[in-house]
Amino acid sequence: MILGQEPILLTPGPLTTSPATRQAMLRDWGSWDAQFNRITASLCRDLVDVVHGGEDYVCVPLQGSGTFSVEAAIGTLTPRGARILVPDNGAYCQRILKICRYLGRDAVALPIPEDQTATAAAIEDALTRDPSITHVAQVHLETGAGVLNPLAEIARVCQMHGKGLIVDAMSSFGAVEIDVRTMPFDALIAASGKCLEGVPGMGFVIAKKSVLDASAGNSHSLAMDLHDQYAYMQKTTQWRFTPPTHVVAALRAAVDQFLAEGGQPVRGERYRRNCKTLIDGMASLGFRPFLAPEAQAPVIVTFHAPADSKYDFKAFYAAVRERGYILYPGKLTQIETFRVGCIGAIDENEMRNVVTAIGQALASLGIRQVAPLTRAA
Amino acid sequence: MILGQEPILLTPGPLTTSPATRQAMLRDWGSWDAQFNRITASLCRDLVDVVHGGEDYVCVPLQGSGTFSVEAAIGTLTPRGARILVPDNGAYCQRILKICRYLGRDAVALPIPEDQTATAAAIEDALTRDPSITHVAQVHLETGAGVLNPLAEIARVCQMHGKGLIVDAMSSFGAVEIDVRTMPFDALIAASGKCLEGVPGMGFVIAKKSVLDASAGNSHSLAMDLHDQYAYMQKTTQWRFTPPTHVVAALRAAVDQFLAEGGQPVRGERYRRNCKTLIDGMASLGFRPFLAPEAQAPVIVTFHAPADSKYDFKAFYAAVRERGYILYPGKLTQIETFRVGCIGAIDENEMRNVVTAIGQALASLGIRQVAPLTRAA
Repeated sequence: MILGQEPILLTPGPLTTSPATRQAMLRDWGSWDAQFNRITASLCRDLVDVVHGGEDYVCVPLQGSGTFSVEAAIGTLTPRGARILVPDNGAYCQRILKICRYLGRDAVALPIPEDQTATAAAIEDALTRDPSITHVAQVHLETGAGVLNPLAEIARVCQMHGKGLIVDAMSSFGAVEIDVRTMPFDALIAASGKCLEGVPGMGFVIAKKSVLDASAGNSHSLAMDLHDQYAYMQKTTQWRFTPPTHVVAALRAAVDQFLAEGGQPVRGERYRRNCKTLIDGMASLGFRPFLAPEAQAPVIVTFHAPADSKYDFKAFYAAVRERGYILYPGKLTQIETFRVGCIGAIDENEMRNVVTAIGQALASLGIRQVAPLTRAA
Repeated sequence: MILGQEPILLTPGPLTTSPATRQAMLRDWGSWDAQFNRITASLCRDLVDVVHGGEDYVCVPLQGSGTFSVEAAIGTLTPRGARILVPDNGAYCQRILKICRYLGRDAVALPIPEDQTATAAAIEDALTRDPSITHVAQVHLETGAGVLNPLAEIARVCQMHGKGLIVDAMSSFGAVEIDVRTMPFDALIAASGKCLEGVPGMGFVIAKKSVLDASAGNSHSLAMDLHDQYAYMQKTTQWRFTPPTHVVAALRAAVDQFLAEGGQPVRGERYRRNCKTLIDGMASLGFRPFLAPEAQAPVIVTFHAPADSKYDFKAFYAAVRERGYILYPGKLTQIETFRVGCIGAIDENEMRNVVTAIGQALASLGIRQVAPLTRAA
């Protein structure tokens, strides 16, 4: 650790940003000022380009965390009489179900074990059994366990059955390939503080223009009415309500760095290297990832907690933090786990270093038994 | 102007912040980390103290712009069957009426000319005429024209009639005295990027604990459910969904400076000096404020646009911007005006300088006729 330097975040957003991204926040911007509004417009164009949205898709930015944008997308882009299928393999899928309950949207859960991916076949089956379903709300990368769901196949099934598709791509956008030409969707949601490596404070919805245009009057909320936000922005170039100006400026800087790095393919490759280095290093300490390799996204890895009775997450977290790294708690209901993110402005050296830090933390806490006894036997 | 320095914002938020406030954003914080959550907790305590809320009031922070918090307060803290009186003397009052329409809350507008303050007598009269009204939603400082409404008198009338009072104090909080002991309210809403001189990106609601406790199930929105946000924060010390960490850290730094300056009384005094210096200086150029002195809050001043036919706001704005200051457009529907903010990390020297800049901008644009002919005659 550099003395006086803050710990590195190995969390799924907020994450560690680059100095250039943070330094973009050192100036104040007027929300009415043309210079600021050109930043917003250029960001929206670049974000549509990430998914090859062309002329048929637009980007609507929204204040708040990513969840605000997910709620806004469901509230604005599905009609009040919609019936929404939600393949459920984790906490963020369950959050969509909760949003549907608040909004009075009819939702149908499709339960999937949290270590398994959603499959196009299971979704097709659900759509066939219940033809009254109008939409599918799919989490692309379920951050609960770190599962990557197969978006291309799911999108094809939705298209074939004529169902609208809303994608929560919070943890995948910028890191995992998303191409609307082969994965058609009505709307896709992500946020500033995830794999684009900006700071948290705004989300955005990339929406099919025809769906957005037809959505006037759907929204349950003024603040989260994407149709109104978009219409106002088209007319004035400005955000409807005070934008988080510094967060927007930081995202502009972050996207500049994202493009300079080589965009999604190169960023994805860096994260894959980070993820592999992490999993390999952790294996050498005896840690097993919760997911099979084919379900694992290169964004956040869930590890089984040490089997040792001395293990306590809070103490473990504190011991690793002292050594310069911030981990993330597990989010599974049945099994004790913890999570380590592979994303942010960090490379594989940092992943090697965190493995060393975790090894030393285990030693300092007297934890010897990492793998469960049944495995060791 | 210092070469390379950004223009100074004379806008009602975002505004010009201090270097210390912006520099607080140079580090990344984990949203699960205890050190970050202590910042949130200390901020909430300090914000309740600003209005002398004691043990009966709590502060619930919320992601998004101030409008998100206004909507959240109305959606969470009034029941679905509420009937809400909205004294209307400007754009932000009308925004509350719009929120009520979205939320299906029954709203009764009490129209007031936009250069006049709401009066306790008019509100009392409306409450007497329509006893089915359950709440009053009052904008404290209507930023549309810059009018300060008499909160103490209005709060007394609401209390006397047993009506709930929701106060939008977006532009007054921190600058104008608010004391819940003499101005009782159910909830009061403000935001980070206004007179506390933080950066935009979060709002907060200071709510009567008993009202918040009774509000489960009211909210139309998951993201904006203040009851759920508060309950989760009580249980975990964390925000429910990803907080705008850098914005929160900047607000902590800004509130530290606010307290070091002497809190609301001293900040209010600085803004009053700024406001007087501005109005006096502008008078020397021939500009008249739209409001009579007794209605004028020391936060933002609406001036009549120059009578000269050569005047065009965009060109005027650009000419003043070139000289280092960002003005704000007017928000009145009938009369052409522009606005100049007196708030932010600036002193009266800056107000003298902007008057000089405006004078030079007028000369460069060939605008000679500032006051209307009828006045000049």
